[in-house]
Amino acid sequence: MLEELKKRVYDANLDLVAKGVVLYTWGNVSAIDRESGMMVIKPSGVDYANMTADDMVVVNVATGQKVEGKWKPSSDTPTHLELYRAFKEIGGVTHTHSTNAVAFAQAGMSIPALGTTHADYFYGDIPCTRELSKDEVEEAYEVNTGKVIIETIKQYGYDVLAIPGIVVKNHGPFSWGTDAADSVYKAVVMEEVANMDIRTLQLNPNSSMAQYILDKHYFRKHGPKAYYGQ
Amino acid sequence: MLEELKKRVYDANLDLVAKGVVLYTWGNVSAIDRESGMMVIKPSGVDYANMTADDMVVVNVATGQKVEGKWKPSSDTPTHLELYRAFKEIGGVTHTHSTNAVAFAQAGMSIPALGTTHADYFYGDIPCTRELSKDEVEEAYEVNTGKVIIETIKQYGYDVLAIPGIVVKNHGPFSWGTDAADSVYKAVVMEEVANMDIRTLQLNPNSSMAQYILDKHYFRKHGPKAYYGQ
Amino acid sequence: MLEELKKRVYDANLDLVAKGVVLYTWGNVSAIDRESGMMVIKPSGVDYANMTADDMVVVNVATGQKVEGKWKPSSDTPTHLELYRAFKEIGGVTHTHSTNAVAFAQAGMSIPALGTTHADYFYGDIPCTRELSKDEVEEAYEVNTGKVIIETIKQYGYDVLAIPGIVVKNHGPFSWGTDAADSVYKAVVMEEVANMDIRTLQLNPNSSMAQYILDKHYFRKHGPKAYYGQ
Amino acid sequence: MLEELKKRVYDANLDLVAKGVVLYTWGNVSAIDRESGMMVIKPSGVDYANMTADDMVVVNVATGQKVEGKWKPSSDTPTHLELYRAFKEIGGVTHTHSTNAVAFAQAGMSIPALGTTHADYFYGDIPCTRELSKDEVEEAYEVNTGKVIIETIKQYGYDVLAIPGIVVKNHGPFSWGTDAADSVYKAVVMEEVANMDIRTLQLNPNSSMAQYILDKHYFRKHGPKAYYGQ
Repeated sequence: MLEELKKRVYDANLDLVAKGVVLYTWGNVSAIDRESGMMVIKPSGVDYANMTADDMVVVNVATGQKVEGKWKPSSDTPTHLELYRAFKEIGGVTHTHSTNAVAFAQAGMSIPALGTTHADYFYGDIPCTRELSKDEVEEAYEVNTGKVIIETIKQYGYDVLAIPGIVVKNHGPFSWGTDAADSVYKAVVMEEVANMDIRTLQLNPNSSMAQYILDKHYFRKHGPKAYYGQ
Repeated sequence: MLEELKKRVYDANLDLVAKGVVLYTWGNVSAIDRESGMMVIKPSGVDYANMTADDMVVVNVATGQKVEGKWKPSSDTPTHLELYRAFKEIGGVTHTHSTNAVAFAQAGMSIPALGTTHADYFYGDIPCTRELSKDEVEEAYEVNTGKVIIETIKQYGYDVLAIPGIVVKNHGPFSWGTDAADSVYKAVVMEEVANMDIRTLQLNPNSSMAQYILDKHYFRKHGPKAYYGQ
Repeated sequence: MLEELKKRVYDANLDLVAKGVVLYTWGNVSAIDRESGMMVIKPSGVDYANMTADDMVVVNVATGQKVEGKWKPSSDTPTHLELYRAFKEIGGVTHTHSTNAVAFAQAGMSIPALGTTHADYFYGDIPCTRELSKDEVEEAYEVNTGKVIIETIKQYGYDVLAIPGIVVKNHGPFSWGTDAADSVYKAVVMEEVANMDIRTLQLNPNSSMAQYILDKHYFRKHGPKAYYGQ
Repeated sequence: MLEELKKRVYDANLDLVAKGVVLYTWGNVSAIDRESGMMVIKPSGVDYANMTADDMVVVNVATGQKVEGKWKPSSDTPTHLELYRAFKEIGGVTHTHSTNAVAFAQAGMSIPALGTTHADYFYGDIPCTRELSKDEVEEAYEVNTGKVIIETIKQYGYDVLAIPGIVVKNHGPFSWGTDAADSVYKAVVMEEVANMDIRTLQLNPNSSMAQYILDKHYFRKHGPKAYYGQ
């Protein structure tokens, strides 16, 4: 079932490798078919080199049960499911341990909106979640990772697609988009923006960007008045 | 029309990718044919991988109108046009979001002339523009980006080819040269000099270079007494 | 003798090159055959490009004598031997001069456990050894390098496989695992974690991770309750 | 004449590119034939991609005159000549603008001996020259660049091959060795050691290495008691 979606999720997972944002198996991409309520996700612990589209796993989003696939779904499956349940607008989710975004996660810092590269994709700082409590970690770690992402995004009060990524404290980045490929795109942009920002803050710890530049760049690419495509 | 120039602009755009200074479509190169008053520029939002020389767009520099091409010209077209109108000496313009040059742009800092690598190509600090005002951003953003570059370069009082690049505050680098390839060359040098300078300033925040070393290196490569070619 | 093990040690040495953690011949991998008490190790000063599995050297672990091979064993052989003698659980050892792990070694600092990437492989900070004394260096440098690693690991009181790596002060990283490939895996992870941590500490010198997150991540991949495989 | 030496100098120049320490034409390698008193060096301003061994230029070391070759010799020729005249032990010289070594040159700082990677090749800090005076720069810049290198090395009082490299203030690294390939080897090591040291000093500005570790590592690879080959 969902053979075409499996192919797209498989391609998106390989794109993570091609873009240099994963080492070993440190990343996973999923997508949802809203009509059937099914999620397709990378299998757990399978090498990218040997993986085929046929190895993708199908999970029922409502029940969390595996519906098809010869492997176990990614261990991060409960986090992906929480995101699809909370945000109806999103069609794909990506998780990586990319170096610079992880640095912000480990530092417990948001990735600040300091330039137009950022503003072209993210309408504001890319937030860092609060630390999970001991109970949250011990009782349902992966589910609660999803919940703390949702809690943080809701604090911003925006359309979830306007802040299509986050860093989870002490862990790393999650991103999302309209489909699997779009969520990978946002993961790669987030890593590059984090790289730019580490260097910027080293040069000038007080760097900032005016709100009207953020508005201009975001809205010339997004929404009814968009006209941009470099 | 201008088939040979289209080929050169196309090659220069691909060279950006080969030199590792663009991610996705985050860059664009143009060139001008002074005789006909036409500019050739990368199309908007077309992937480098699928692009051909035939996709380049021809724009009338005086009117800003598209003259030939199946795509829209790059969204940064008004910025390129301003530069060609203000500086008759330049034949090519490049814009990128290369990591280290963007870091200086986001920090609101000039890229200081700290060594002979810099002095071989840029006769002084590579300036950072002032921040655009709210009105400038909202009314004619891309045109005003060109205008603030021109304003900044004119403050230096030099031949524009002696300072063949700049960083626009909170945005990123623009560079120029005698033709498309030369403007890419300057973009790549600027990125590497920015990389060197971030590391230099980390080691010693008070780094500087004597004016006579800047003079020597610049003028052994440029002007009537040039003799250099490593 | 041990032709299969030679092939695995050879492959593991080449994997160091493929993963980008060695320059020139700055690394070596060994493995032990516990049944026969023999260690297979990279030869001394042979280029990776010209090396074959047949160039691997066999050394008697108890006596330290070469048993087979046309070359001298790696100069670090006495260090490897000390580790195999002290820790019966380990089957492979790797030494590199990878950039970021060396930075921690040169700074005399442990690589702190700041995130879940670290916690997935190392159950706590990756320690830095004390400085060797003048006598230790002059009398039996490579043997004493092994001894100070053992001394440091024993201070932690853990299963040696729970802290499968260390940085030797002013020198660089050593890592170990169940076999040659596993010790290379740990060397690559250590380098990437060191890279993440340098950037993290630059952003926030007071970064830290709660003990319960370390526990959760380590034990969901290791021990009787493991369930993880990204 | 000297066809074999031309081939070796050509190969050494290409190795600079393969090792990633030059951008564009920012580097040059030479070698000397002590018997005939002739130096073979890269031509000036010729791209690496189109260069052949036949393009190398032969210069008389005593007179500084070109003896054979269709191109002008590298503009840095006078610097190379000074080094061959002052140090009879050296057979090859390399100059690059590699990123991290340049950072130390621009910062006006020696590359400190902080670890065994350094100690394996350089018996002490890699010095940074003093700044050239205005007169030295204006009168005979390339000759005086050679002279200030010699002045600095002589201050150390060592065999020149024990400190086979230097950074020239505000300029970049020069290195030397027994032949062309050896001088490139030292250039690549210097760049990597500079990279390690920038990261080390960021982690701990007070990093240092005991003299007896420097002695041990240098002399296990060099001199009558050498036994090392990783």
